[in-house]
Amino acid sequence: MSVPREAGRGLGPVLVVGTGLIGTSLGLALRAEGVTVTLSDPSPTACALARDLGAGALETADDPEPAVVVVAAPPDVVGAVVAARLAAHPHAVVTDVASVKSAVLGDLLAAGVDVTRYVGSHPMAGRERSGAIAGRADLFQGRPWVVVPHEHSDPAAVEAVTVLATAAGGAPVRMPAHEHDEAVAAVSHVPQVAASLVAARLRDLSTDAVGLAGQGVRDVTRIAASDPALWTQILVGNAAAVSTVLGELHTAIGEVLDALDGLREDADAEAPGARATLAAMLADGNAGHARIPGKHGSSPTMYTTVTVLIPDEPGMLARLFADVGDEGVNIEDIRMEHAVGRLVGVVDLLVRPDAADPLCAGLLARGWNLTE
Amino acid sequence: MSVPREAGRGLGPVLVVGTGLIGTSLGLALRAEGVTVTLSDPSPTACALARDLGAGALETADDPEPAVVVVAAPPDVVGAVVAARLAAHPHAVVTDVASVKSAVLGDLLAAGVDVTRYVGSHPMAGRERSGAIAGRADLFQGRPWVVVPHEHSDPAAVEAVTVLATAAGGAPVRMPAHEHDEAVAAVSHVPQVAASLVAARLRDLSTDAVGLAGQGVRDVTRIAASDPALWTQILVGNAAAVSTVLGELHTAIGEVLDALDGLREDADAEAPGARATLAAMLADGNAGHARIPGKHGSSPTMYTTVTVLIPDEPGMLARLFADVGDEGVNIEDIRMEHAVGRLVGVVDLLVRPDAADPLCAGLLARGWNLTE
Repeated sequence: MSVPREAGRGLGPVLVVGTGLIGTSLGLALRAEGVTVTLSDPSPTACALARDLGAGALETADDPEPAVVVVAAPPDVVGAVVAARLAAHPHAVVTDVASVKSAVLGDLLAAGVDVTRYVGSHPMAGRERSGAIAGRADLFQGRPWVVVPHEHSDPAAVEAVTVLATAAGGAPVRMPAHEHDEAVAAVSHVPQVAASLVAARLRDLSTDAVGLAGQGVRDVTRIAASDPALWTQILVGNAAAVSTVLGELHTAIGEVLDALDGLREDADAEAPGARATLAAMLADGNAGHARIPGKHGSSPTMYTTVTVLIPDEPGMLARLFADVGDEGVNIEDIRMEHAVGRLVGVVDLLVRPDAADPLCAGLLARGWNLTE
Repeated sequence: MSVPREAGRGLGPVLVVGTGLIGTSLGLALRAEGVTVTLSDPSPTACALARDLGAGALETADDPEPAVVVVAAPPDVVGAVVAARLAAHPHAVVTDVASVKSAVLGDLLAAGVDVTRYVGSHPMAGRERSGAIAGRADLFQGRPWVVVPHEHSDPAAVEAVTVLATAAGGAPVRMPAHEHDEAVAAVSHVPQVAASLVAARLRDLSTDAVGLAGQGVRDVTRIAASDPALWTQILVGNAAAVSTVLGELHTAIGEVLDALDGLREDADAEAPGARATLAAMLADGNAGHARIPGKHGSSPTMYTTVTVLIPDEPGMLARLFADVGDEGVNIEDIRMEHAVGRLVGVVDLLVRPDAADPLCAGLLARGWNLTE
């Protein structure tokens, strides 16, 4: 899949400190671009695994000085590790990949560290799986990679981190730390808290009650399966920004509660405006949802869904995709729908709008059962 | 896909009042079972469309008396329509399919209606699309269909609605109205409010900030695209139960805010227990999430994911599924992952755990590039 690019050329040796998912994926991505990568991790086992996977060589005392050190350590030790590496590599640019940016810089400044050569960054990439074993070279491919200049940072250091992000396949976006932290509070940290808290409400339901769960609550709570230890660190690290956005959510829920209380059957009279409050809340949700970029790019990409019923028999999916291929249509996304208790094969094929009609006609002619 | 079953036998004529998504789908499902279905809707156009789709015949004055009348009207008129139909069809069992159950029964009792022949119900099925055109015969297939007996209901009426639910392909679950309403508040209505409110926080973000959105917030906010008018009615109809669960959510967010405020960089000292509060909240989310039934049944079904990198070329998906079929493995679910700005073909195949190792070996032998 990897196409040689110019991106990695001119990037000196990179030392990756921390060989979890992000560090290992970075090593894999950079090595695919011809960059020299060395690896370090407090766990020799984790480090050796990343090496075995091809993410780089183990760090030794004889290594040439790295041009860039990337600290991919757990959030609560990032500041200390960055400071240590700035001291250990007096000519290197040091960056980190933590999900929160103000706290790291604040810790370094509070410790009196010279941060000229430090430029934080944050690749917006991850997986529900963790560890070196989940690493992959394409993890950052096309994903935003936030580069965070600050008032003390050397422009050359900012440029070096930008080149690194590009070499790894990311799309660099420059943003001050507070802007980054406020943005991820809204697009990542508060959604995580909301998902966890909505899921927590299901914990003590009866089996019958939780049996009524459908796709909506599944989607809302999918990330509630995330690692509590990691997320505690992230929320602690971004406490101020998360608090602001979560406070807005708290206030908004209070308004919804007031509206609902004015509408209860046992209320003396329906509160004026209560329905309007609910409708406005839902409409604001529509508006916010519409701002989320599409899967493939920076603006919403609309695909048309072609829904095919398939008999639940071996080989039917292969036959379907062979037929789709014969029609010359590219599938942009797939969703399979199952019904509880019985395998009903319903496959949604998302295709470019201009391909939908020919595909439908072709599939119908081939005997497929389409809905809608 | 439709297999003739016994389910529809013995079910007398059914009148469906309201030919939106649910009413039309019900007509299609019942007719596939050999049930006689007539249709009624305040909009002659909507009704004729449902008829043309095959959901049933238009209601006429000469129709034989229906055995069961199903009111599939918008939530805010259900009570009135049920009352009218109980009066118009003095021997029929009348049910409705509204998402909220206590309010309908309460309205009928408040109006002094004899509710012996009324038994509410709620098929847990829906689509993001609405209207007759989105209807499909398999909509209820295997999905829970809540049947709601009450203290005045005739057991024969409860049985008739249960037979109807089964005939439509649903899995009947009996539950009193308050239990139903509390359950859907937790598994459906509060998740909707949370999704809408989290999405609303994105509305005024900068383009750069919202550009950092990843799959997590996409999932959390997917249902924020829902219809505000319909959802206002649902929330109004279930105000008391929603208020209870949403109140718990409000309190829990307040606790998270207190914890975060004790952790802010500018706090005098870290509040004791603040980290533990966050970790416990996230762990409760894990526990609640784990209670959601798997896609296929009433208990969580765990599949193993086999991740395949596929070149972004026409025909590769077909080749992959042909190879999977040749390996004799059944795919339980599929996810495709794309990277922003570039189509990287990463396909997650979810298979039964015992099929994963043979499938991996087989696919590797056939030259596929697997990750993990």
